[in-house]
Formats: sequence, structure tokens, C-alpha cells
Amino acid sequence: MLVVQKYGGSSVATLELIRNCALRCRARVAQGDRLVVVVSAMSGETNRLIALANELVAETHRVGVTKGPYVVSAKRTPEHERELDQLVATGEVVSAALLAMAIQDVGGRAISLVGSQLGMQTDRSFGRARILGIDVTRLHRELERGSVVVCAGFQGTDASGDVTTLGRGGSDTSAVALAAALHADVCEILTDVDGVYTTDPRVVPSARKIPRLSYEEMLELAGLGAKVLQIRSVELAMRYGVHLCVRTSFDDRPGTMIVPEEPDMESVLVSGVALERNEAKVTLVGVPDVPGVVAKIFTAMAELDIVVDMIIQNAGVDGRADVTFTVPQSELDRAAKAIAAVQFGGPSPTVTTDSEICKISIVGLGMRTHAGVAARAFSLLAADGINVQMVSTSEIKISVVVHERYGELALRALHDGFALGAG
Amino acid sequence: MLVVQKYGGSSVATLELIRNCALRCRARVAQGDRLVVVVSAMSGETNRLIALANELVAETHRVGVTKGPYVVSAKRTPEHERELDQLVATGEVVSAALLAMAIQDVGGRAISLVGSQLGMQTDRSFGRARILGIDVTRLHRELERGSVVVCAGFQGTDASGDVTTLGRGGSDTSAVALAAALHADVCEILTDVDGVYTTDPRVVPSARKIPRLSYEEMLELAGLGAKVLQIRSVELAMRYGVHLCVRTSFDDRPGTMIVPEEPDMESVLVSGVALERNEAKVTLVGVPDVPGVVAKIFTAMAELDIVVDMIIQNAGVDGRADVTFTVPQSELDRAAKAIAAVQFGGPSPTVTTDSEICKISIVGLGMRTHAGVAARAFSLLAADGINVQMVSTSEIKISVVVHERYGELALRALHDGFALGAG
Repeated sequence: MLVVQKYGGSSVATLELIRNCALRCRARVAQGDRLVVVVSAMSGETNRLIALANELVAETHRVGVTKGPYVVSAKRTPEHERELDQLVATGEVVSAALLAMAIQDVGGRAISLVGSQLGMQTDRSFGRARILGIDVTRLHRELERGSVVVCAGFQGTDASGDVTTLGRGGSDTSAVALAAALHADVCEILTDVDGVYTTDPRVVPSARKIPRLSYEEMLELAGLGAKVLQIRSVELAMRYGVHLCVRTSFDDRPGTMIVPEEPDMESVLVSGVALERNEAKVTLVGVPDVPGVVAKIFTAMAELDIVVDMIIQNAGVDGRADVTFTVPQSELDRAAKAIAAVQFGGPSPTVTTDSEICKISIVGLGMRTHAGVAARAFSLLAADGINVQMVSTSEIKISVVVHERYGELALRALHDGFALGAG
Repeated sequence: MLVVQKYGGSSVATLELIRNCALRCRARVAQGDRLVVVVSAMSGETNRLIALANELVAETHRVGVTKGPYVVSAKRTPEHERELDQLVATGEVVSAALLAMAIQDVGGRAISLVGSQLGMQTDRSFGRARILGIDVTRLHRELERGSVVVCAGFQGTDASGDVTTLGRGGSDTSAVALAAALHADVCEILTDVDGVYTTDPRVVPSARKIPRLSYEEMLELAGLGAKVLQIRSVELAMRYGVHLCVRTSFDDRPGTMIVPEEPDMESVLVSGVALERNEAKVTLVGVPDVPGVVAKIFTAMAELDIVVDMIIQNAGVDGRADVTFTVPQSELDRAAKAIAAVQFGGPSPTVTTDSEICKISIVGLGMRTHAGVAARAFSLLAADGINVQMVSTSEIKISVVVHERYGELALRALHDGFALGAG
């Protein structure tokens, strides 16, 4: 079997953990598997390097602002971003070389390959590069020699040989792309949790590990706080039919398989329930109900790179409408200021904000074919006296916004009400 | 003018120093020069990375021993050495990217190039690679764009794209090789001293900075404790006629030019006097005076990679000879043990060792044409009552071994006796 394994930063955070990974790799090879391992930087290393860069420019220019995957100086030029990628990519080079040495040290054959060596070709979008293709010639050669091939995750090179990075969590993307290019039997994401749960076990003790999940379900859960896998890597796995497995790097327990949809999967009504706490709500009452006016609101948000999640618009009376939408809590102030500056071409709407909210989402393939999931969810919430402020639905997901004080209660009510608990 | 500058680890040790280098680079470009900058890793970074690797293998294998440029595990395989180079080369990548950012930040154009990007092609001798050639296509392209090209020193890639390092001090070699390949007008080595002195100013306060020195003189001085420049980089500069300049990175004082020999250089009898403290002496009395026997001694040293410096052999009486040689003090115990194990094919010689010695060398092109330098040196030493234990001479150098307690006295006597002092 050809296996691609990805070890996250917490799995290679110390030399002792790296030795542990090396022993696991050796054991896997002893079972007869061929192994490609993708590693992230040791925990904290990427942030250390970014802090160096940030501190360097901070004294002569403004302190950086949060934007995209990096904290970058306000003076953000392509030249600067190129250097940042060159700098930050060294974190994964270090952990890859150390893991290769550790495998050699326990008697295995191993070689580390960095972006240029492993043929990971990307475009030139520094800090968020897209993979264009992988030249697997060398990878195959090293595998044929019987080596564990330890790949530096998160990085590639563009056509001119410049180092690019794939964005935060890009090592997952590296692993899935390598699994697709090598036609690997499975891509295992080894991390500090042992799989995907029906909900957050810290909030709902009866939460149960899900043995098997479809890509679509994982995508809805990943975007919602079950932060086990980068959404982009799940999309990539879905596109190329790569079988993913999420499991812990600390022991041999089986994890969660994420695979193409299978016929029996729809028999499960709800697979998981997720809670997202860091949401905030913006409400505009009395927006002129004229084509193009609502667009102004969301154009203003897009210009600030503020991600808008749920949007509700009620057709109004008197030619005026009400609009409510949610943004990340950290962006609420910027969002409110931007809204205040919008010219609506008439009397301004009344703007209110509320950061004391949270969002709960119910995900499951079974919703497609079974009616009444929404009704049952509302009943369960009502039974506990929880008021629903907003609702949005997709084919396999229902999300509701409630006051933040009811978040955990709602999560437990839905989790147990849909019988997701153990046993 | 096309200038190659090399900044050592102490010149980029902190972000503040990196900013300082950036300002100097900008000023140089403002003068109309085109600039290629070679950087070492920030002080301490290379050792930090080596310590990581060493600690990783230390628990399962023996702790590393000093050998060559690295401290490497006893389990020293080519595969391990490859990973060590991959690991250690990241130190220079980090400082190069940071310096490029800093130059951009003060309004300059800059790009960093690492081994593979700057076309530095080497053989596959990990940890001590030789440069085979430099493909300067990209370097020229970036220079034509008006960029300061910041090169990661100390590293290259072999034919298969694997990262190699040039050995400790390899950044000097990188700089000289780049200057040669680009036909640069000058290669400036910027460091924490402001030039090459007639002797160690901490010992002899009247020591004077030498404005101009030939390669040959620098080679004799570099190998002797004036540890400003790697001997290998001076050899390379000599081979390609690269004009070197050693100066400080902290201010604009002119440094020492190291250039091809010029006709008037021989008018200076002695250019410098150097003291080497870390020497030790091994004496064998009664070595069988048979062909091949003395070779056994030095074969034993070579097998342990012990560098033997001075060798004196006296043709003996009764078919037996006396042999004296010097080794680094740190190798004295290993050397003595190895000598004790040599089979001389007859009665073993008496072996004595002495680590309380030091070596003083007088260097100058003028010795070639002026007789009597040795005689004058001995007179100067005798006048201060200093006994000479060993002597060796080359065309432009005289070295003497004296008791270590007389080292500084001898240095001052020779320095002032040959009128090297200021004024």
C-alpha cells in the first residue's frame, strides 16, 4: 500500500515527538507499506519567523495588520511577500530534515525533499499559492530505493524557482495533492485529535467519534469549527477522490475516514453538530428597497476583506427593507464603521450590532432525502426555551443563530435530540 | 562599479544590525554602484541547528565528535550528512530574506537568492562541497532590474538539486566565487574588525592596520591566527584575481585591500607578525632511521584527521633519528595515544609531549629578496633572552616555536624590531 501521512506542527513540536514519529514511520514500513510523509513546521516556528519579519519592518513602517494567512506589514508589496515566503518556508525544511535524520537514526532509510526537490509547482501568488502540478519523478525514484520520503509541507516553487507557500494549513493541501499525484491508497492526516467527532467533546461529553464521513459533510463541518482539516484540502481530496483519514499521531487508534459518498451514508440523518462562537451580527433597519443598494453593503465588506457568513433580507414595507448578516466578532468594529460610511442615497438605515451571538450547524447527508430535520431542530430548541434569531439552510446543513448564553445548551439539545451520542 | 559584499554572522546578528546593513546597502547603491550581498546566518543560528540535529541522534546513538566543519554523530552516513546540509543551510536563507526585506523597507529594491536560485553548482561532498560553477543568468537579470541581490552564503546545490554547504566560513568562499563569476570590481568582506593588522592589537598596542597586502602574505597570515578571512577564499581570490577588501560593517573606515602582488610590495621587508597559541609539540627520540618509518607517524596522524603543522627531523646517530612536530593543543592526547600504538619494528622511541608552547610567524614578500631576516629575528629574540625551540621557513615566512610564557614578549619584540608599529 502506498500511504501519504501528514504530521502537523504539534506532532513534531519537540525532538522527542519527532523521534516518536520516526518510530511510527519505521513500524509502518515494516508492515510492508511505502511511505511519503509531509511535515509542518515545529509548533511556534512559523510564528517566530513571521514575528522576525514583522519586527524588522515595524520600526520604520507601521505595525502589520492581520490579513489573510499572514500578519504582514501595511507596506505589502509582491517583493516583500516573496521574501516572506522564502523566509517562512524554512520552518518546514527544518522539521523535514530532522524527521529524515530521526528515521535514519532508528535504522530506516529516509530522505527529505523541499519544495523545489519534490517537484511541487505552483503559481506566483506568494502566501496563498495554488498548486499547478507535481513532477513526481524524483518522488518515485526515492520510493523505489525504499526510502521514506519526508516532504516539507506548505511550500512549492514557481516557474522561476522562487519559493512559494500555500497559506496557513497548507501542509494538509500538500499532503492531499501528493496523494493525488502519486495515486496513493490513503492520505492520513495525523494530528493531536483522534478523529472527527459528532460535536465538540469538551462541551458535550457524549460526543462520539465518526468512523466514516463523506467529503460534503466534512466540508460543512470543517468550515464550522471542527478545525481538524483545512477546507481547501478536503475540496482537493474530493476533486481527486483521495481517501482521507484523520487520526492521532500519539497512538494507533483508528481515526475518521473521509471518503466519496456511499449509498448507505444517507441512512444517517445527521452526522455532526458544530458550534461557532466568534460570530457577530449586524442589523440594518430601513434600507431603501432599490436595486443595487444592498450590494453596496456587501461591496463595502468585500473591500475590507471581511468574510460575511449568513445573510437575511426581509422584503420591507414602504419601499424599505431590513438586512441582517453575520461577520467574525474580530471584524465587527471595522464592519460597523464601513456601514456608517455607505451612501444609501436617502435617509440612512438604523444600524445595530450584536456580538453576543453564536451559530450552531447541523450537518448530514440524510437531510437531502429526509424532510423535517429543520422542524425537529426547532422543536428541540423550543423545548429548552431557546429563541432562534436567524436561520440559513443548505442541502446538507441547517445553521441557526442564538444568543451566546444558549450556545452550549443548544448544542447538547441538538446532539442528543438527534441521537448522536455514544451507544 | 560592481561590488560583491559579504556580511558575516556578527554583522547580521540582530534585527537592528540587519537594518544597519540595509542602510549601508542603500547608501552604496545611491553612489551608483551595483551590489551583490552575501550573508552568513545570524550569529549562533548555525550552532543552534547543529545542536538540534545532534540532540536528535544523541539519545539513541553516541554523542557527536568534532570532525571537520561540523560536530556530527559518530553514525556519519552520506544520508545523514545530506540532511544536515539541508537543515543547516536554512540559517543563511533566513538572514538573506530578512536583509532583502530590510532593504525594501528603507526604500531600496532587493531580492534574496538561495543556493538553487543563484545557480551555485557544487559537487556532492556534503558539509565541505566544492564549487563547480555558477550560472549567473538570474543574478545578471536581477542586477539589471536594479535590485540589490542578497545571496544566501555557504550553500549551493548539486546536480540533482540537493542542498550542499561549503563548510564553516563558506560564506567568504561564496562571495569570492560570485565576485569571480560576475567579474566584480571588488569583493568586500565586512566583519567586526576593520582590517588586517600588523599583529594582534590586543597584545601589541602599536599594531597598525595594513592598507595593502598580497594574496601570498594574506595566506600566510590567515593560516596563523589573523582569523579575518578563510584561507580557502583567499586562495580562490588569488586564482581568479579577485580584489578583496576586508573592512568593518559598523562604519565607513577604509579596510585592508588584498590584491595581486605589485612591484613595490617587496620593498616592505615584513608585513605582519602573528602569534598562534593553541599549538602543542610531540617529540620522538630514537626513531629507527629506516625508510618508511617516519611515514608511519604521519600516516597515523592523517588517519585521525589531525593537522600536523611544523615537522623537524634530525638525522640521528646509531641508525636512530629524532622527530619533533606540532599539532593543535586539542588533539594532543589523541596524537600521543596514536603514536604509542605505532609499530616501529624495533625498540620504540621515547615520546614526550609539551603543550606549553606557542608559534610566532613573520610574514613578508620582502624576505624573498632581502637576506638576513631570519638572523635579525633571532637576534631580536635573543636580546630579550627568548630561547627558540623550533624553526621552519618558507619563501615569505619564518615561524619559530618558543615557550608559551614568552609568546607575547616575542611578538612585541619582533613587531617593534621590524618597525611595524604606527608612525
